[in-house]
Amino acid sequence: VTSWLVNGQRDGHLSPADRGLAYGDGLFETIALRAGRLRFLDYHFDRLVAGCKRLGIPAPDCSQLTRELEASRQDCRDGTAKIIITRGLGPRGYRPPEVVAPTRLVSVTAADSSAAQAWSSGIRVRLCTTSLSENSALAGMKTLNRLEQVMARAEWRTPDIAEGLMMTEAGHVVCGTQSNLFLVRHGTLLTPPVDRCGVSGVMRRVILEEACRLGIAVQTPVVTVAALAMATELFVSNSLQGIGPIVRWNDESRATGELTRSLMAALVQRGVQECAGD
Amino acid sequence: VTSWLVNGQRDGHLSPADRGLAYGDGLFETIALRAGRLRFLDYHFDRLVAGCKRLGIPAPDCSQLTRELEASRQDCRDGTAKIIITRGLGPRGYRPPEVVAPTRLVSVTAADSSAAQAWSSGIRVRLCTTSLSENSALAGMKTLNRLEQVMARAEWRTPDIAEGLMMTEAGHVVCGTQSNLFLVRHGTLLTPPVDRCGVSGVMRRVILEEACRLGIAVQTPVVTVAALAMATELFVSNSLQGIGPIVRWNDESRATGELTRSLMAALVQRGVQECAGD
Repeated sequence: VTSWLVNGQRDGHLSPADRGLAYGDGLFETIALRAGRLRFLDYHFDRLVAGCKRLGIPAPDCSQLTRELEASRQDCRDGTAKIIITRGLGPRGYRPPEVVAPTRLVSVTAADSSAAQAWSSGIRVRLCTTSLSENSALAGMKTLNRLEQVMARAEWRTPDIAEGLMMTEAGHVVCGTQSNLFLVRHGTLLTPPVDRCGVSGVMRRVILEEACRLGIAVQTPVVTVAALAMATELFVSNSLQGIGPIVRWNDESRATGELTRSLMAALVQRGVQECAGD
Repeated sequence: VTSWLVNGQRDGHLSPADRGLAYGDGLFETIALRAGRLRFLDYHFDRLVAGCKRLGIPAPDCSQLTRELEASRQDCRDGTAKIIITRGLGPRGYRPPEVVAPTRLVSVTAADSSAAQAWSSGIRVRLCTTSLSENSALAGMKTLNRLEQVMARAEWRTPDIAEGLMMTEAGHVVCGTQSNLFLVRHGTLLTPPVDRCGVSGVMRRVILEEACRLGIAVQTPVVTVAALAMATELFVSNSLQGIGPIVRWNDESRATGELTRSLMAALVQRGVQECAGD
């Protein structure tokens, strides 16, 4: 059972009139807690604050959020922290209230041991039939409107498939249900743009930084299913699990590629990846 | 202040872990309460139950919902009832739990007098720049993912504009932020399809039924801004306000058209419209 701080109140509850529930009018962050540290908390705050600005929600006080996260984790050293910021209460109707008092929710869930490291050794993925809709007004943000991801994740139950890739109706592969996507072709690292849909992942940002530091060429082209087949390396990434090399795709086995391994090694240096592709 | 029944509990609160908040994983209905009656409650239930089926959420017990709505309204005879059904609690992550225990929220808000009748005498609308994204997996349902409508409604504050029309990125005008759209051209009633985005409105259904009864030809073509300019009559509709004739569009005044008036008269017969275009 996870306990929540709601506007700083322990075991607080949410008003059923909150716009976060009514309209998904808000944002969230999911942060890895590892060895007592909240990983890339500053990057999560960057994205959260930028998203609030785009939605017209007053940005949260990040030092207050940090204190509440620390208070929530208590003795917990490994797990998942979550922040939700909503536009708070308001009168009926879509129109945002003139004066917004955001609702701030914070929780920490202890890790369920095995799952955290499962991606490093390679994962199997599938292609989802639920498509991603495109809207540049919302693209890149981790909004509370996530029904497409729920529908996509509901498509399979077999535990050997770790992730499902999602396409736009135009056939552009953008991301996984809970991850960003990377390809390697001719020594170049490719990742789909997230300016029309998808989330601008914190781990994606870290990986792009590391690629830059390692002198790896990076491009952000539109990616089709055909491009996936032609890629020499494929991996997904997210904040909780770092890099997940795709070792099984379309009933075809792949080894974890060389460039993927060097990026995983770089993540080990930054304290992310628990083991580099073994 | 509106009171809520949460799973039958008066003044209940919502768990911050509810998937309705986390992902917008649920549906809602907004129902007109007029002279003590919940208008078209059966149609609202039709849509709610069909939506639950599509999302894989166990359908609510509609007689239980009816009892809870009646209990919530107490002495209130005019206002707005709201039902929210979510996929309930679940472990972290998009994947729906194996066993779903939906959360059921019911409220009634007393009418704020003036607003309810404001549409009958004609309204001014604008075109929103926030676009509607297309996804046939979600189209037609009144899901809790409504951030596009919030962003669109935040575009204007002038009280003389009652509604904003929304387009897809392809330039198809589909609906208002909180209404469906109708056009008349060459004596035919046109309304955009809602199979790729938009909500299958209860009042839209009633209007299409009345058009059929009156022998008015109906089509559901894709509608562009150019088609709006060529229409001889324009109106929007929703459950709370019936038909709202568009009398001001693009700085051009229009009278309420003849076909619109006959549909408004038909709605008066069905107890919807308070006054027919006067």
